[in-house]
Amino acid sequence: MAKDKKQPRPKAETPKGFRDYFGAEVTQRTEMLRTIAGVYHRYGFDALESSAVETVEALGKFLPDVDRPNEGVFAWQEAEEGDKKGDWLALRYDMTAPLARVYAQHRNDLPTPYRRYTMGPVWRNEKPGPGRFRQFYQCDADTVGTASMAADAEICAMLADTLEAVGIARGDYLIRVNNRKVLEGVLDFAGISSDDPRRPSVMRTIDKFDKVGEQGVMELLTLGRIDESGAKIDGVLLDDMVAWRIVQYLTQKSVPQMADKSEELGELNARRIASMRQAVGGSKIGNEGVDELEVMARLLTAQGYGTDRIVVDSSVVRGLGYYTGPVFEAELTFEILDEKGRKRQFGSVAGGGRYDDLVKRFTGQEVPATGISIGVDRLLAALRAKGRISDVEQGPVVVTVMDRDRMADYQAMVAELRNADIRAEVYLGNPKNFGNQLKYADRRKSPVAVIAGGDEFDAGKVQIKDLILGAKIAENATLEEWKDRPSQYEVARADLVAKVRAILDGQD
Amino acid sequence: MAKDKKQPRPKAETPKGFRDYFGAEVTQRTEMLRTIAGVYHRYGFDALESSAVETVEALGKFLPDVDRPNEGVFAWQEAEEGDKKGDWLALRYDMTAPLARVYAQHRNDLPTPYRRYTMGPVWRNEKPGPGRFRQFYQCDADTVGTASMAADAEICAMLADTLEAVGIARGDYLIRVNNRKVLEGVLDFAGISSDDPRRPSVMRTIDKFDKVGEQGVMELLTLGRIDESGAKIDGVLLDDMVAWRIVQYLTQKSVPQMADKSEELGELNARRIASMRQAVGGSKIGNEGVDELEVMARLLTAQGYGTDRIVVDSSVVRGLGYYTGPVFEAELTFEILDEKGRKRQFGSVAGGGRYDDLVKRFTGQEVPATGISIGVDRLLAALRAKGRISDVEQGPVVVTVMDRDRMADYQAMVAELRNADIRAEVYLGNPKNFGNQLKYADRRKSPVAVIAGGDEFDAGKVQIKDLILGAKIAENATLEEWKDRPSQYEVARADLVAKVRAILDGQD
Repeated sequence: MAKDKKQPRPKAETPKGFRDYFGAEVTQRTEMLRTIAGVYHRYGFDALESSAVETVEALGKFLPDVDRPNEGVFAWQEAEEGDKKGDWLALRYDMTAPLARVYAQHRNDLPTPYRRYTMGPVWRNEKPGPGRFRQFYQCDADTVGTASMAADAEICAMLADTLEAVGIARGDYLIRVNNRKVLEGVLDFAGISSDDPRRPSVMRTIDKFDKVGEQGVMELLTLGRIDESGAKIDGVLLDDMVAWRIVQYLTQKSVPQMADKSEELGELNARRIASMRQAVGGSKIGNEGVDELEVMARLLTAQGYGTDRIVVDSSVVRGLGYYTGPVFEAELTFEILDEKGRKRQFGSVAGGGRYDDLVKRFTGQEVPATGISIGVDRLLAALRAKGRISDVEQGPVVVTVMDRDRMADYQAMVAELRNADIRAEVYLGNPKNFGNQLKYADRRKSPVAVIAGGDEFDAGKVQIKDLILGAKIAENATLEEWKDRPSQYEVARADLVAKVRAILDGQD
Repeated sequence: MAKDKKQPRPKAETPKGFRDYFGAEVTQRTEMLRTIAGVYHRYGFDALESSAVETVEALGKFLPDVDRPNEGVFAWQEAEEGDKKGDWLALRYDMTAPLARVYAQHRNDLPTPYRRYTMGPVWRNEKPGPGRFRQFYQCDADTVGTASMAADAEICAMLADTLEAVGIARGDYLIRVNNRKVLEGVLDFAGISSDDPRRPSVMRTIDKFDKVGEQGVMELLTLGRIDESGAKIDGVLLDDMVAWRIVQYLTQKSVPQMADKSEELGELNARRIASMRQAVGGSKIGNEGVDELEVMARLLTAQGYGTDRIVVDSSVVRGLGYYTGPVFEAELTFEILDEKGRKRQFGSVAGGGRYDDLVKRFTGQEVPATGISIGVDRLLAALRAKGRISDVEQGPVVVTVMDRDRMADYQAMVAELRNADIRAEVYLGNPKNFGNQLKYADRRKSPVAVIAGGDEFDAGKVQIKDLILGAKIAENATLEEWKDRPSQYEVARADLVAKVRAILDGQD
């Protein structure tokens, strides 16, 4: 700590885009992660906590230019050792790239298939914005080493169970399932084959469906459009008929033949799957995708997951480029008020799908895998917006200090309260000004204050103040019902715990 | 994922000095952190999770040389913005420096005193060695904004409660308390004043007491010594008498006058405090330190924390340089076998003390603070070494797949098991080779396998295999007692859950 005293004081600030979390923000997240881990564990998934730091080489996606790493990750170069240049290391930006590294590294010791869950912070070196942080939590479950659609169906079922376990009621969420192969089939059938130079542009346009909607995609696939700022965005110049067919698929507006198998697949799934079957025509890969969705729908229906919880939906397009088969997205369907007081749907809280290329990077062998990532902070925000959890945490019982020489007696009181599993603390600031002690209790959101000075000790008594009732009385001084209720009680010292307990129980 | 295919494959390796944690390693740590948080919370401490990334400036201790940061932290420079040079950022190396930053930043919104706990990984950019990792967990509790010894006593009491809560029995741990001011008093009294040029060397030498022992310190304070490698270490050249007095203090060998107050302080504390009083002579700061220890001892005795749990001990010297008042260290007193089969004491699992300069760096105002840091990974290692927790986690019940067309039926079985709160999964690998499925169950450490093929489905039955009993029978094939016990049962499909539950209960 010996430092040059002339140096300016450091600024007490979190770096831009980072924040601290206090009290209930932390404990509620911990509790939610525990609940989620409980569901994952019951499904047979094993915990994994991989290193937060990876070699840039293993993360793969972001490699260093010459001397400085790319944007996107926080990276640094290790010091040289002798004439060996230091490795580039980076903070993980998601949980999937590290999983691929872990599986490749430990594959001889891990069971196959390997079901694992993991939760923790990830870091993105992006421009921070309002509500956008550079460190946030992810909570993932993945099954590595099986191509079976049963694994994908299981992930979706588990996601539904998880959302209900953390407090999202059935009916307040919907898990939508699509398959990247179906989209490829639609493009094949529309005459845009996988080596067609227009295909990447078409894919990128489809990815914008969530943002620009039906009309927007139609325009972008054909002649282009004028965006909100007035700028002209070039179109892909597809024939209207081809573009129309793609949009029909995305919006599921094509009229299906009478769907069969509706009992096995669920009525709505059966109709949508029939519609997809039409949209892919004779495309081999497209039909493979529809078959996969059919298998998933059948498994989920058999397990009692109806289309009110998990449903086939061709409009799930976000992030399709990343995945190789089924893709899932969970959204909350209730409305909340946004910061401007407008009603809006809460939207997506989890997403995932099947990806087959990640482990191959390391081993050369294809290892199929599928998984889900839950945005824990968004889910917490949703529960708070719905009023299902409060972000105000009740504070501890505060034992005030009237006589600083009796500290041991006050400590004995808090010890008794804690032993009765009541959160309690003694006031440790300067006890001179008693008003400051009550202000402190107020700031701590304490439900009860305990007061004992010389008179009380002599008489073997304590004063117990119901702070929540006291605050209500202060706010509503005229209300008859509270006028006769005292908010402060004198009880025998031996009854301290019982009386505090009674007040706390009454406050609930 | 589109990459140049000619690039060599990345290595699937954690960076040097980092590791991954699997299964029970993760869940047991999570459980321990939850238990610790429960005790801290009951004591009135509030959760805090600060950003893992700080500006190097705020961390303070390690500032970048010219272009590259010092050793010790993982640090990197942000990209320039316009002509503004990017900030240097770093991963936190402990929880105390970030607490000082958080308190300085949010002091107007936080209660004073502010009791907070925090748990999470910290990172050190050090040369990794066996058992020494560059990422590890810390679990801290601190009280900021009070100079009262009641805060220090509370921290020690809470630490004792915490150790017992996680499974360290009373008698298996000892919290030793010293005070840096006493040491300063001893040096004052020995004629080595605070501006004496020999003082820093004397302090550094005393810090080595844990390593080199009584004889070593005596030699280093006088003429020097020859270390294990044969190298000559220069001594501080104190007079023998002065050095002897310091060593007497460290080893508490001076004979105290008859200790009074033994009832209030605890017999052993009273004797040691009297010995310290002698060792500091008329030194003002020394007597201040002894007074502080006396206050702590009195508070702890009054709360029933005897010297079998928390004891004054002048030999606690580690890290004294960092602290400004009381210092604490918790050690486990039981013996374990080390990697070479030799018995040794487990040693330290937590340490802390009072420090007053950290917040001042930011605000200029002195803010007294005291706290403790628990080494969670060491504590877990201790419990494992004692056999109090197992590092083998029981796996899930595995429902095997005899007929891949009946996947929905198998899924229904696992769903029933999970709904009964039994951890269960269906086999998702290639079901062709049934032997592989049982090998998988073995690797998963599954207690039970469920088996159903066409015959069973036709008859409305399932086979249930007790894998743990089966393994025992296989190991002890001659044992009469197991000969008549079947390890596989055929039960009605409706009795699946009840039978699995009965087997699991019997295995406990």
